[in-house]
Amino acid sequence: MNPSSLPSPLSSPLGGEGWVRGFKSAGIYCGIKKDGKKDLALIYSELPAVVAGVFTKNRVKAAPVLIDMQRIKKGLCQAIIINSGNANACTGKKGMEDAKSMVAAVEDALGIKKGFAMVSSTGVIGQRLPIDRLKKGIQKLVSSLSSKGWNDAVNAIMTTDAFPKIAFEKCRIGGKDITVLGIAKGAGMICPNMATMLAFIVTDAAVERKTLQSALKKAVDKSFNCITVDGDTSTNDTVLLMANGKAGNKQFTVHSSQFTPFYQILEKVCQSLAKMIVRDGEGATKLLEFNVSGAKTDKDAKKIAETVANSPLVKTAFFGEDANWGRIIAAIGRSGADVKEEKINIYFNGVLVVLRGLDAGREKDAAKAVKNENICVKIEMGLSKGKKTVWASDLSYDYVKINAAYRS
Amino acid sequence: MNPSSLPSPLSSPLGGEGWVRGFKSAGIYCGIKKDGKKDLALIYSELPAVVAGVFTKNRVKAAPVLIDMQRIKKGLCQAIIINSGNANACTGKKGMEDAKSMVAAVEDALGIKKGFAMVSSTGVIGQRLPIDRLKKGIQKLVSSLSSKGWNDAVNAIMTTDAFPKIAFEKCRIGGKDITVLGIAKGAGMICPNMATMLAFIVTDAAVERKTLQSALKKAVDKSFNCITVDGDTSTNDTVLLMANGKAGNKQFTVHSSQFTPFYQILEKVCQSLAKMIVRDGEGATKLLEFNVSGAKTDKDAKKIAETVANSPLVKTAFFGEDANWGRIIAAIGRSGADVKEEKINIYFNGVLVVLRGLDAGREKDAAKAVKNENICVKIEMGLSKGKKTVWASDLSYDYVKINAAYRS
Repeated sequence: MNPSSLPSPLSSPLGGEGWVRGFKSAGIYCGIKKDGKKDLALIYSELPAVVAGVFTKNRVKAAPVLIDMQRIKKGLCQAIIINSGNANACTGKKGMEDAKSMVAAVEDALGIKKGFAMVSSTGVIGQRLPIDRLKKGIQKLVSSLSSKGWNDAVNAIMTTDAFPKIAFEKCRIGGKDITVLGIAKGAGMICPNMATMLAFIVTDAAVERKTLQSALKKAVDKSFNCITVDGDTSTNDTVLLMANGKAGNKQFTVHSSQFTPFYQILEKVCQSLAKMIVRDGEGATKLLEFNVSGAKTDKDAKKIAETVANSPLVKTAFFGEDANWGRIIAAIGRSGADVKEEKINIYFNGVLVVLRGLDAGREKDAAKAVKNENICVKIEMGLSKGKKTVWASDLSYDYVKINAAYRS
Repeated sequence: MNPSSLPSPLSSPLGGEGWVRGFKSAGIYCGIKKDGKKDLALIYSELPAVVAGVFTKNRVKAAPVLIDMQRIKKGLCQAIIINSGNANACTGKKGMEDAKSMVAAVEDALGIKKGFAMVSSTGVIGQRLPIDRLKKGIQKLVSSLSSKGWNDAVNAIMTTDAFPKIAFEKCRIGGKDITVLGIAKGAGMICPNMATMLAFIVTDAAVERKTLQSALKKAVDKSFNCITVDGDTSTNDTVLLMANGKAGNKQFTVHSSQFTPFYQILEKVCQSLAKMIVRDGEGATKLLEFNVSGAKTDKDAKKIAETVANSPLVKTAFFGEDANWGRIIAAIGRSGADVKEEKINIYFNGVLVVLRGLDAGREKDAAKAVKNENICVKIEMGLSKGKKTVWASDLSYDYVKINAAYRS
């Protein structure tokens, strides 16, 4: 995207106190990436935090995902180590040993309880991690930990990302200031679900464990899952959420009145990060919102929104600033949803382009609408009440360039 | 693809007699395409021919498809009129009137029975046909009909195709020479199923009607459906097959010994055309064959082959000549098929790149293999006997260029 439209670096929300009470982080270069950029990040909570997680549904899961899925069962976590440049996926037993020695090294270096560290990896599939360099890096990381280390950490988890993704929100719960902060990496949004997406979210709120998990699940469904097709994720996709209670509020459950303000800022943080990922779609020049309503069911609306948003023909048309609604109708028709062609209306940023399945005759206004960087494609199916919104990027020359050259 | 690898123009197989006994064809420019290239084709049989057809499963069907689906029920056809440059899809009642006046104009001009003409259209969706220019064109077309007109006809059905697609095969049945000839158009193979694919096949064999339909259905499953995902086609996809009996053989059914040699050449023609379509994938530089075996079921094998073949990340990697097998494993994992990572073997043109889910350590040979223009990716799942082969193109800069600029 145009650099002027990129988010500018954020400064620490608590000023001298750092970002989120009781959390420290760091990011360094340890020798995995060929270009010398930061490739190792650490998130640390001063005390064991309640943890929630959502993981890839891919049948092939990377070693770090398998470890986290095991460890999350106990519900507590004090540190997350993340490397970029190598996914540690399809690496078999040796890859599993590598991931285990990563968490062990972190636990040793921090002096925290065994089993209280989690791990994520992102990058090339099928290659062994340089484990000795990683272990040395972990020593250095621990000594770099800072309550203001988030800009370094988010830079260290990037792969093909054009910019770092960080978001935070604050609210007041029971007289206490609560912060939710998240960092994420991900791009490669041609079929939104194909590139690894990682997000790490921390909060100083005190939240009951099952409540934290259900809040995260719901927020992910309303954000990251609107840019990724369920069950159709990479080998490494992971979202982790730690809550350490340092804000001093009374721990709440899903039934307390305190839940709603907390959930709202969590969802906001997740949606901000999700939209940044789309905006950073490899080579993306536009942020497209596909807003489907009036479908027979929500499930049908989802099929339609995802089929249209994933259509390379639709995406290239928007890149070419061509108001080619025929490709949208064709995608709707093959989505598998119930369709009555003669009931479909389509709008581009409020301009009616299709009226009851036919050209609405507003070619000039439509041509102007598709020149915007943000385009909302509203699709009214006219059948019932099913609805779904999905965000996607367009498809440009640069997508091909980035992905053809990624490994070399 | 490299022009040297494109098929060269064919010459008439029957010499002075033309191409296929009893069939004539023609192709002209009638004023639909902006660039002045041929845009109207006619196929004519001297006597009513038995006809079989396979149509798009898209819920949104173009007017000509709806007409053909109705007309094919009577099983006889004497002419097919085809225009390129305009799909006559999403054009409502007026589009249906236009399609009806096209077939009526052809029937009048040829003096054939009402209901004996069929129609296909391909091109931009949502715009009305220039019906007056079309009607004038039909007059001119009829006077241009020739038993050697196939090169003109195939040129007139092209849209973004880089080269015309024509194939024929001959065999001997009951002492008679039988010819099967087909022409096709189609490209745009990023998700192989998204661009309109049309094929028109003629034979001078005498074939019983139901036999002809089941032969076509089977041949399409083994050819065009190996490059298109079932049920997931454009608004206009159509394959029609006419058999006029001019070869003089005794009409045969699926139970006769004559069926097999006929079916074999029909399948060969369909496969040749299907591979030409992939080879002409918009911007394609490589022809990729994904050959899956050892899956739990044939259905699983199909899911795997199609998910891998449709993955833009896999396709861009082959364009970049990067032996990035990790993207293939990731696609297998999210295909929805049963997967045991540690049982998967993958070969690139015979070079083992993945052994039991892990890097086989033959990076150099693999790098050499992916430099080929034709790459066979063999995927052994190691579970049971399910198998499926799919052909696809790679994904290059030019795909984006062609599709971003198509309408303008």
